[in-house]
Amino acid sequence: MNYQVFDTTLRDGGQREGISYTVADKLAVARLLDEFGVGFIEGGWPGAMPKDTEFFERAKTELELRHAVLVAFGATRKAGVDVAADPQVKALLDAGTPVVCVVAKSDIRHVERALRTTGDENLAMVRDTVRHLVANGRRAFVDCEHFFDGFRYDPAYTASVVQAAIEAGAERVVMCDTNGGMLPSMITKAINEVVSLTGVSPEQLGIHCQNDTACAVANTVAAVEAGVKHFQCTANGYGERPGNADLFAVVSNLQLKLGLKVLPDGCLEKATRVSTALAEIANIAPDTHQAYVGAAAFAHKAGLHASAIKVDPLLYNHVDPSVVGNDMRILVTEMAGRASIELKSRELGLDLAGHPDTLTKVTQKVKDLEAGGWSFEAADASFELLVRSELPGADVARPFTLESYRVLVEHREDGTVISEATVKVRVRGERVIATAEGNGPVNALDEALRVALSNHYPHLKSFELTDYKVRILEGSHGTNAITRVLLETSNHTGEWTTVGVHENIVEASWTALVDALTYGLARTTTTV
Amino acid sequence: MNYQVFDTTLRDGGQREGISYTVADKLAVARLLDEFGVGFIEGGWPGAMPKDTEFFERAKTELELRHAVLVAFGATRKAGVDVAADPQVKALLDAGTPVVCVVAKSDIRHVERALRTTGDENLAMVRDTVRHLVANGRRAFVDCEHFFDGFRYDPAYTASVVQAAIEAGAERVVMCDTNGGMLPSMITKAINEVVSLTGVSPEQLGIHCQNDTACAVANTVAAVEAGVKHFQCTANGYGERPGNADLFAVVSNLQLKLGLKVLPDGCLEKATRVSTALAEIANIAPDTHQAYVGAAAFAHKAGLHASAIKVDPLLYNHVDPSVVGNDMRILVTEMAGRASIELKSRELGLDLAGHPDTLTKVTQKVKDLEAGGWSFEAADASFELLVRSELPGADVARPFTLESYRVLVEHREDGTVISEATVKVRVRGERVIATAEGNGPVNALDEALRVALSNHYPHLKSFELTDYKVRILEGSHGTNAITRVLLETSNHTGEWTTVGVHENIVEASWTALVDALTYGLARTTTTV
Repeated sequence: MNYQVFDTTLRDGGQREGISYTVADKLAVARLLDEFGVGFIEGGWPGAMPKDTEFFERAKTELELRHAVLVAFGATRKAGVDVAADPQVKALLDAGTPVVCVVAKSDIRHVERALRTTGDENLAMVRDTVRHLVANGRRAFVDCEHFFDGFRYDPAYTASVVQAAIEAGAERVVMCDTNGGMLPSMITKAINEVVSLTGVSPEQLGIHCQNDTACAVANTVAAVEAGVKHFQCTANGYGERPGNADLFAVVSNLQLKLGLKVLPDGCLEKATRVSTALAEIANIAPDTHQAYVGAAAFAHKAGLHASAIKVDPLLYNHVDPSVVGNDMRILVTEMAGRASIELKSRELGLDLAGHPDTLTKVTQKVKDLEAGGWSFEAADASFELLVRSELPGADVARPFTLESYRVLVEHREDGTVISEATVKVRVRGERVIATAEGNGPVNALDEALRVALSNHYPHLKSFELTDYKVRILEGSHGTNAITRVLLETSNHTGEWTTVGVHENIVEASWTALVDALTYGLARTTTTV
Repeated sequence: MNYQVFDTTLRDGGQREGISYTVADKLAVARLLDEFGVGFIEGGWPGAMPKDTEFFERAKTELELRHAVLVAFGATRKAGVDVAADPQVKALLDAGTPVVCVVAKSDIRHVERALRTTGDENLAMVRDTVRHLVANGRRAFVDCEHFFDGFRYDPAYTASVVQAAIEAGAERVVMCDTNGGMLPSMITKAINEVVSLTGVSPEQLGIHCQNDTACAVANTVAAVEAGVKHFQCTANGYGERPGNADLFAVVSNLQLKLGLKVLPDGCLEKATRVSTALAEIANIAPDTHQAYVGAAAFAHKAGLHASAIKVDPLLYNHVDPSVVGNDMRILVTEMAGRASIELKSRELGLDLAGHPDTLTKVTQKVKDLEAGGWSFEAADASFELLVRSELPGADVARPFTLESYRVLVEHREDGTVISEATVKVRVRGERVIATAEGNGPVNALDEALRVALSNHYPHLKSFELTDYKVRILEGSHGTNAITRVLLETSNHTGEWTTVGVHENIVEASWTALVDALTYGLARTTTTV
């Protein structure tokens, strides 16, 4: 492969507000990135961060990589210190990775004001560190921090850092837009100037962009168009402030728009799955509007479009969604109207074309419910139950009817907190009362309902609640607001999402829970 | 002003999944956009959408704009219909706006397959509609749908649409990247070719970019660099699929990076406030990582940076945050360490420089709590209480101590749902028991606690819960997961945010509630 796809999700990406990886998380992230086919995985800063030291240690035995090599990140040696005696540099070698990437100051103002040393000593630090790494059998990459700001302020000094690194044996010198202030035209201009000033080939350079002008992806693409063949990204653009260049968008643009081969065969179509899995591990809600891989990336809402899409899907998508492992979706909303509802139903295997009355009723019902805060965009299972309940003669069997429930949460004098729920339901003609405890009110309710239904529906046991999302609507009313709950349930055959809306979070959860069990039982019954 | 800042938040932006504006919302959005200084506000499609018709009707009397003019959006006349007899075109005139923007097909494939008419008839539709609008005293803009795809497929046909529109009297012809598949270099190349092929000046062209390659902002900037002076954006990039070009990033880049004056004086610094207010109205959680205006846009987490920022903040920010009305923030996280905690405390008016032991204790406590799922990044009030409780001799007075609470949620046989809470607390030596009802379990608890404390703290009445956010951590465990609650409380002197974490959502809310009241009472007591 001619291009170096360098991922720094585990190092620079970890700086994003809200992310905190365990070592096990880091190993899982590395496996997914390798599966996606990146060439380099920067795992962290051994020595500086205890978790990162442990990651590199465990990686030696627990990580088998097929496409990628591991990279340890660190800094050049300290000012005034012998490189061989610098414990930070020693920790980089101890990490045992084939590649080491060291950050160097390349803006003279940062050298003098933040590092508090001289320009010459900084150059010596770069040279010594690179030589030492190479002498110890490592491939050395140098991240030039604040490259573009430095180059604008004092081109000669920044150029001398590039030359020092290359002369000392660095394989790549990476131009970092650390503060993220660049635009694509500025990147192109700077690279052309750097190449002519230093005589270094663009193929020896790399690019690392932050997203502070919302141009990180475009800046990275512009650098590649200017001849750079090494680019640093993070999955989903995670990173400090507005983040880094998003790996999935950069790679998709290079492969699908510029026709460059940057990933091994068969990898790009894993983009959507890997992106979602990495969001899961980072414990960040996936950005549904993310380019290429977001759930809404190919979702069409406008009634205008939805009716035309029936004619020719490719006229309305910039690429075939399947090349990045994504799907086209039709959203069910008030703007969409009948055409969307019909298409969406067809997606779910329900043909409403022959049932115009049902289509009218469902469209009206969806409009009314959405006006009250409901949203079926993510809740396909609830939508399907709604459509089926309107289809003539094809009603959904409700597995039980509710008489009443009661949930109690108690914080006792000794500090323990307990949750207990009682449900009274009718199942196949029998009245059942069941009580259970749980970690919280919704869990207790779920447990009690399962106890009540378990005799009649033993396969309920295989259902697991896998995600629970709470959205408070009308944010300006505090706890008086309406609550919308999305529940994701799964069993061995798949997963499904249901929705509930109520001013009371417990009742909203109950509604979603009932839909989840109803849908799951209907599916199990018809497929078994 | 030489540049036309054309906002389509209310029209194209409304296509975003999850957005549903009322007419009152639309009026509020228009007022905010006008305050931000945009030149054109596209309000919707009168005739096609009843809400939009009503919006334009009410705008005539209820909307006073200082900077902007209103634009009605619609389509060219129908194929084979006299333009004067086309009810859709008539509705555009009835909207009474000085400007009308009509969408036209400019990709011959869409003309033939989606519109099902001929290239010639489509050109006649453009000419007739523009002439009719101009004859009726309107400034006419033409949005060329699928412009870039069409131009690539059949340059001559797409060019003929541009020429037809200009010859008929259109003030601007807007090149729309409807499917969003372009990169900046492609935009530059296409514009140069269009100009040379049609002889139309770039100043007569406009640009409208969708974000499907994550390059909408960069594409818009590239078009302006190529000479285009009319650009269409949406606030926060709201729009279908991955959205549109974000108004705030585009305008900030043009003004701050390219030195172009596109907004009236004094408007750019409203960017952060207007962005947040528009997210509120759209009922979409603000994107904290949004360039320029996000809460984290200038937030520094890395310990490395945080210590250097003390030396010189401007070395670490690509622009001064105040020029877009934003602030620099220091995040409190495990990665930040002592330097960040010290800076953050200083932001809150607490100088820990002279208390190294307290600093150590607070740093350790934050690390431990964050390992358990707590997050102080957004919860300044809880963080301040934590710091104050560790300061020697400066302990926070706890207004009460809890003995126990009990919350009951009941779904009764008649379908009513009730929530009732009882709290038993000690307030200034007195044991108080109070019970109250609420819309949900947390609201009931809040009400009961207020009843219990009201005699001793009458100014509690002025506190209002203004936002309540629930985050489920460890998303793969369903309702067994840990819950983090963020509560925003306000009174006439300001607002503050507190956090609570527990496996039980009620207990997590309780913790945040107690902090909210404690913090508010401490503040009220010391300031009165």
